[in-house]
Parts: sequence; structure tokens; C-alpha cells
Amino acid sequence: MKKYININDVDNLDLIVQEALAIKKAPFSNNKLGTNKVLGMLFFNPSLRTRLSTQKAAINLGMDVMVINFKSDSWTLEFADGTIMNAGKSEHIKEAAQVISQYCDIIAIRAFALLESKEQDYAEEVLSGFEKYASVPIVNMESATAHPLQGLTDTITIKEYSKNPKPKVVLTWAPHLKPLPHAVSNSFINYASEVDCDFVLSCPEGYELDAALDRSITIMHNQEKAFEDADFVYAKSWASNIDYGKLTETDKDWQVTAKKMGLTNNGKFMHCLPVRRNVVVEDEVLDSEHSIVIQQANNRTYAAQVVLKRILENLES
Amino acid sequence: MKKYININDVDNLDLIVQEALAIKKAPFSNNKLGTNKVLGMLFFNPSLRTRLSTQKAAINLGMDVMVINFKSDSWTLEFADGTIMNAGKSEHIKEAAQVISQYCDIIAIRAFALLESKEQDYAEEVLSGFEKYASVPIVNMESATAHPLQGLTDTITIKEYSKNPKPKVVLTWAPHLKPLPHAVSNSFINYASEVDCDFVLSCPEGYELDAALDRSITIMHNQEKAFEDADFVYAKSWASNIDYGKLTETDKDWQVTAKKMGLTNNGKFMHCLPVRRNVVVEDEVLDSEHSIVIQQANNRTYAAQVVLKRILENLES
Amino acid sequence: MKKYININDVDNLDLIVQEALAIKKAPFSNNKLGTNKVLGMLFFNPSLRTRLSTQKAAINLGMDVMVINFKSDSWTLEFADGTIMNAGKSEHIKEAAQVISQYCDIIAIRAFALLESKEQDYAEEVLSGFEKYASVPIVNMESATAHPLQGLTDTITIKEYSKNPKPKVVLTWAPHLKPLPHAVSNSFINYASEVDCDFVLSCPEGYELDAALDRSITIMHNQEKAFEDADFVYAKSWASNIDYGKLTETDKDWQVTAKKMGLTNNGKFMHCLPVRRNVVVEDEVLDSEHSIVIQQANNRTYAAQVVLKRILENLES
Repeated sequence: MKKYININDVDNLDLIVQEALAIKKAPFSNNKLGTNKVLGMLFFNPSLRTRLSTQKAAINLGMDVMVINFKSDSWTLEFADGTIMNAGKSEHIKEAAQVISQYCDIIAIRAFALLESKEQDYAEEVLSGFEKYASVPIVNMESATAHPLQGLTDTITIKEYSKNPKPKVVLTWAPHLKPLPHAVSNSFINYASEVDCDFVLSCPEGYELDAALDRSITIMHNQEKAFEDADFVYAKSWASNIDYGKLTETDKDWQVTAKKMGLTNNGKFMHCLPVRRNVVVEDEVLDSEHSIVIQQANNRTYAAQVVLKRILENLES
Repeated sequence: MKKYININDVDNLDLIVQEALAIKKAPFSNNKLGTNKVLGMLFFNPSLRTRLSTQKAAINLGMDVMVINFKSDSWTLEFADGTIMNAGKSEHIKEAAQVISQYCDIIAIRAFALLESKEQDYAEEVLSGFEKYASVPIVNMESATAHPLQGLTDTITIKEYSKNPKPKVVLTWAPHLKPLPHAVSNSFINYASEVDCDFVLSCPEGYELDAALDRSITIMHNQEKAFEDADFVYAKSWASNIDYGKLTETDKDWQVTAKKMGLTNNGKFMHCLPVRRNVVVEDEVLDSEHSIVIQQANNRTYAAQVVLKRILENLES
Repeated sequence: MKKYININDVDNLDLIVQEALAIKKAPFSNNKLGTNKVLGMLFFNPSLRTRLSTQKAAINLGMDVMVINFKSDSWTLEFADGTIMNAGKSEHIKEAAQVISQYCDIIAIRAFALLESKEQDYAEEVLSGFEKYASVPIVNMESATAHPLQGLTDTITIKEYSKNPKPKVVLTWAPHLKPLPHAVSNSFINYASEVDCDFVLSCPEGYELDAALDRSITIMHNQEKAFEDADFVYAKSWASNIDYGKLTETDKDWQVTAKKMGLTNNGKFMHCLPVRRNVVVEDEVLDSEHSIVIQQANNRTYAAQVVLKRILENLES
């Protein structure tokens, strides 16, 4: 693996999921692979799970880790070409990416969507900037439109918990107080729909995600109908795709409730976390045995570890 | 040791102090104990000594360390049960604590008192939240009402510097520009009063701490009288206990001066640091040979190290 | 080496440059030297290259690293003697420096110029405070008036890229939107002028740096004249030295352009980074084969590593 930007960087999803599950059983078995190798973790946005699980994965592989929180620790970056840099931005991505590449063997980056324009977010300015100018492999720790470490985690979790050879997997939009990026949902669609499953996207009109449209995913605007016989219900809020970046849907009835979970096939509840309790989903669901959000978060370590392992192996060869 | 929340987690104070002093002589002698073990350090408040000494202790034991500064690096946490989370807080302690437990083998937490209500502070919302939901041992790096790593440090320091088999130990209130938490003083009382000593609390009326009242500590409102023949004078400011969280006493005469130290039995001056020079204590005292504040701060490493060591040993067994 | 504060701490520049270049060829050859040694990195200001390269250097030597960003993670420090500390500052440098010395084997510090008064900046309050009270070696990661890790880096880079036994080296002032410290330029002068070279400082009147005046460096106010036949052009902006701390010169014609670089002897372009593109220097220069700013930044690691190596060797003996 030469980089880990999105689903396109995974050549065989089944194999990588199997390898992640093997790593989970013996997390320290490759702890010499990262000797004298440094992971640079660059945060343009807050992070809890991604920060800790990716760092843990690197440690498990014997890597050293250096963390930069760009907003507080370093300089603001300019991404546009040809700019006269006489305003707030101190350093150009051209220099930053090339320079950091000389201190780190792998660079992992978190840079959220701005939700100001679809074109801008899908251009993936920050991630693409690093990809273009860095001379070492890049790992996406959630970009404007994709969160492939989460997507891989989710697939690992479905494989681990599925009792059905072809489970029904429902991604449902959920209410929120503010508009959120499409990254997690896009990646969930891109990854989970590659598994042998019946995949359904349930969302209000105008919230049909590009990833779902691209993959011709079944879309249902009736959430209860979508939940019927589901083996997995994955809840997530995201901003409108038509009135891009806005939160036009305010109907609280999209909340995932225990009653709705009763329509499923003893379905497991999933969420990438952090989750707004009693906004996105009822306490009763999260605190039930059907919720696997904690186990799902645990798999973040092994998703990151299999990705770093494959990149390290590629560096060596 | 299964956790380190307060004095109740120490079954034999003498033994742990002796062990800490032994570690101080050979700090790297257990540097394999922490192999493949991660300490997660969570800061909800600033920290210098605690941050560095606890990290150093973990390093000495061969652990890896991951640090999160919650205010800048991560999400704000909700601690109340049953809340509809449609305001500023993004993640519930239920998820956060369970998730972090999967990435770390021990979680250390700093979360200061808010000083808004006694009931609230003594409920120890943050620390108790983590204790309740985490699945790994918790270490208190100063909570709303206790600072047991400091309390242990102070006891180690008294043991190390005492020439008297039963020293007179005075904890004195001192002036400050703002109201401060009770945590350090409570823990000093709880720890030091367990040592064979004459323990005296000297403070203005209304500042008698709960820990002192619970332990029937001798309380003197006349500071000079309290200082007579003292072997150790520990200075600290804290907010009123009656008019909880307020700083009602503004008399600068409570400052520890060289003149007052002259009343002691060549008494050693102690303070947890940071200390406001010429507010809490005169330069002349801090810069004299009687001050052991620097040596005291050094013992923070060995207090943290003996605690982490015992927790690691318990993990293994 | 007992400390690394400025050029005076280097007894033989040629030898240390040679050693750095040897380290560059085998960066892990001394990876046991730092066993059980901790580098404490204290940042009072933002940092990208210095942060990562110094940390990388420490890792290459097998050290552990602890980082504190003073503004966000810790307490504000008081540096003045005898102050009554009843205002915003919580801790005195006397305690902070002594305490940190007990947790770290080497302390590295970044503390920029305030540019409020020349006397104040040249007093180097923060760095001198640590130097005075710390009991372990101090490394300067850019202070108010010197950036000796950068100066050493620059010399290494000139040695590495010079085809001429006695190259012409030009340090040129460049335009900027705000006044900047003298630290980088002072250190470049102090280091590079020690190499066998023709050194020329090119700057507007009033911008003649103290380091240049002290060393009787050739000063030219005509930039184009200065560039003639140069082997290296080092661009940097800095505040006036006469009207100290102000940016009185706003002439954009001081920008380094491809046309001006055409006057040189196929000169290499250098800059410490971050650089404001099309303000300090044209894109065309930075993106040309004549620019070695990225290679220069790479040498930051080896400059830091040779310094840390020598200090560690001195600790051992």
C-alpha cells in the first residue's frame, strides 16, 4: 500500500479485513516493523478516537509518533497556487508538505469539510495538497469527503458481528443541531457496500449522498420501512447534498429509537462516535445489548494498524 | 493497586513511601514492566509538574504515553445522565471513557474544581464519570477535591527530610489573588496526618477544610502560634469552605515570611508549586536553605512511578 | 558541549559541520546514546520545522521526548526578580526551570522576540532565565535574538552545496507584511561568516543588523549589486534595527526575483522557512532548481542531532 486516501487504495477489502482481525488477536506481533520509522500526525481539527487509535496502532508496530495540532502549535497554511501571501497565512503547502516528508516516514492528516461549497470540499484542498507535494505516504484521518479508516473499521465490525452471510445493512440519516460533513457516511457506503450485503440508505429527500448515487445504492425516504429486518443500523447525521452544507431537515422523528430498532432483525446499532445522545439516537438504544458502538471504536486501532503495517511493508520493499 | 483516586486506594502508606524512595535510587530498574502498555493522560486543565513527572514516571517504567488536552485537541464532554445533547457538548462520558479504555492500559485524568458549588465539586463529576465507565485503572492527576499524587509526594518528602521521629507539621492557609480549589490541601491533610506527626492546620475562620474536620485535625486560627517549633511548614491558599468557592479573606498578613519561619524548629518550607512569590510566601523564604519546594517537586516523579508500577503489577497478575 | 545557546557554544564550526554530515549518512548509528534520557521541548511560540526536526533528532538518538506548549498546556511564567506575583503570572522562572530540570536531561526552548524594545529582546529574558536557573543543558530552539540550530543548518547546507572553495554568500533583507525578529539573520551572519566565504549583507538603511556590525560584514544597500556573482542568496525579512521592532521599509522591490537571481553565479536560493511566496520571493525562484530551501530544512534534523549528541556525550563523561 502506497497511501491511504480513500477506498480506491484498497485492492482487496476482504483480505485487509481478515488481516485486521488477525492483528486484533496478536497486536504486538509486528512490533519491530516500525523500528526507526516515524508517523507524523497532523491535526487541522479536533480528534479523540482517531488521534488515540492511530497513535496506538503506530506504537503497536514499534513506530515513533510526532503530533502537530496545526491551529495551536504551528503556522496557518496557504493552499492556493500563485497567491501573494501577504495576509494571514504564513506557509505554503508546497513547502510544508515537502519539509514534513523529510522528518516523517508516513504522514497522517485530519482536515474536515468546511461545508461552504460542495466543489471546494470535494476538491479536498488540504489532503490533495499534501498528497501532491509530500514525498512519503499519506494516510487520511478524515478529510472533507472521506474517512477511510472509519470505513474500514466499520467493515471489520460488520464482518465480526454478522451472523448472516448476506446481512441487511442500513445507513440512516439522523437529526443533529448543526450540519455535518459527508465524510463518514460516504466512506461507510463505499466500504460496507463492497461486502456481500443488502445495503440501504435511508435519508430525507435532498440528503442522498454522492457515494450512494455513484454506487446506485437503494435509497428509501421512509426510515421505518428501511429498518425492517435490518441486521445493522448505522446512524449518522450529515448536511444536505442539494442545498449543500445546510441543515434543512429538522424533523426530530428521524432519531433512532428503541421502537424503530424493534423493526429490525435484532439489528446491531452502529455509530462512528462522538454521538449526541437523545438527538441522534435514544439512550435506550445506545445502552442496550444491541449497540456495538464501543466495540466498533475498538476496531479503529486495528484498521489503522493494518493500514500502517501495509504501508511500512511497502516502504521496506 | 487497582486505581489511584484518593487516599483510600493506599493500603499501607509507609510501605508505598519506602518503595518510592527505593525507586528514586534506581529509577530504571523496572523499565520492562511497562512494555506494550500505554498511559493515556487526559488534561481538562493546565499542568506542568504533573504533566512532566507523570510522563517521566511512565517512561521510566517503559510505558508509551499518549496525551490529550481536552480543551484544544478533542471534544467537550457531557457528564449528566439522560440529557438531550443538543447544546455545546459533543460526546458523553459513557462513550468517551469506554472508548479510551480500549486504547490505553491506564488512564490518568486532571480535572479541577469549578468552585461554583461544594456539592458539585465533591461529586467529582469528571473523575467519577471516568471511574464509573472506564474499564481500565484510573489515576487522579488532581481532581476537584483531591490531588493524591501530590499528597503522596509530600509524605515521601517529609519522610526524606524529617530529622524528628515525630515531626510537627503545619499546613497554613496563605493569601492569594483568586480563590483556589481544596484538592492539594485536602490530600496533604489526608496523607501527612497518617504519618506519625503532630499535625496542625492554621487558617482563617471559615477556611477549615473538610479533610481536617473529618480527621479531627488540630486547627489554629493564630498562624504564629501554629508555627512555633514546626519542623515543616506547608503553605497553600484555598477558597472558603463556608462561603464555598469564594475568597473572603484578603488579609495579607497570612503570607509566610522569614520572620515567621524564625518561630519554627528550623522548619522546612514546602509548597506544591506553582507558587506566587511575595503573595503566598516571601522571596527570602523560598530562596533560603529551608525551602525544599524543588526537592519536593522532584519526588512527584517517584510518587507517580510507584503508583504506576503497582497498577502495572496488578494488571499482570 | 554543555549547552547550545548561540555561536559561542561551538568551538570548532568545521568539525561540527563535518560530524553533522556524517550523521546524515547514518542517522541511527548512535541510537543507544539517548537511552533513559529525556528531552523536554518547551514552546512559548509556534513551531513546525524546529518542533519536528528536533524531536526527530532526539528519536534518532534513542531519547524520549516530552513537549509542552506553554500557552495552552501550562502556566504563564514570571521572569522578573522580586515581583509581587499578584497579577496574571502563576509561576516564577526560578521554580519552573529548577523543577523541569529534574524531569528532563536536556531542555530545549523556543521563545521569540517581542520586538517592543531592543534592550528587552537582547536581554533574552526567557532563555537567560532558563539558563540561569536550570541544572541541565539548555538548547536554544530560537530565542529573541538567535536561532543557532538554524545557523548551524545553514552552514551545513552551504558546505554541502558549495562548488566554490570560497563562495560568495549574500544575506538579503526582503519585504514582509509585518516586522520580524532578528534571530535567524543574526545567526546566519554569525555562522556563515565563519566559513571561508565572501559574505555580504544587503539591506535598506537602518536595517543593518547588530551581528553584521559586530563582525564588520560588508553591507550593501544596493541589492542588485550585492547579488552579482553570488553563489548563495539567503533571503529573510526583519524589523528595523534603528527604529527597533518597526517595519519602516515597505518597498516591494526588495523581493527576490528570478531576474535578480540571474545576476548571480547560478546562485542557490536559501530561506529558513516558512516563507511568504510572492512577498519575500517569487514563485519562479522557489520552484526553480536553484532553490535549496527544502534540502536546507532537511538539514535541521542533523544540526539538532549533532548538538544533542554532543550534549549527551558530555552528560556521560
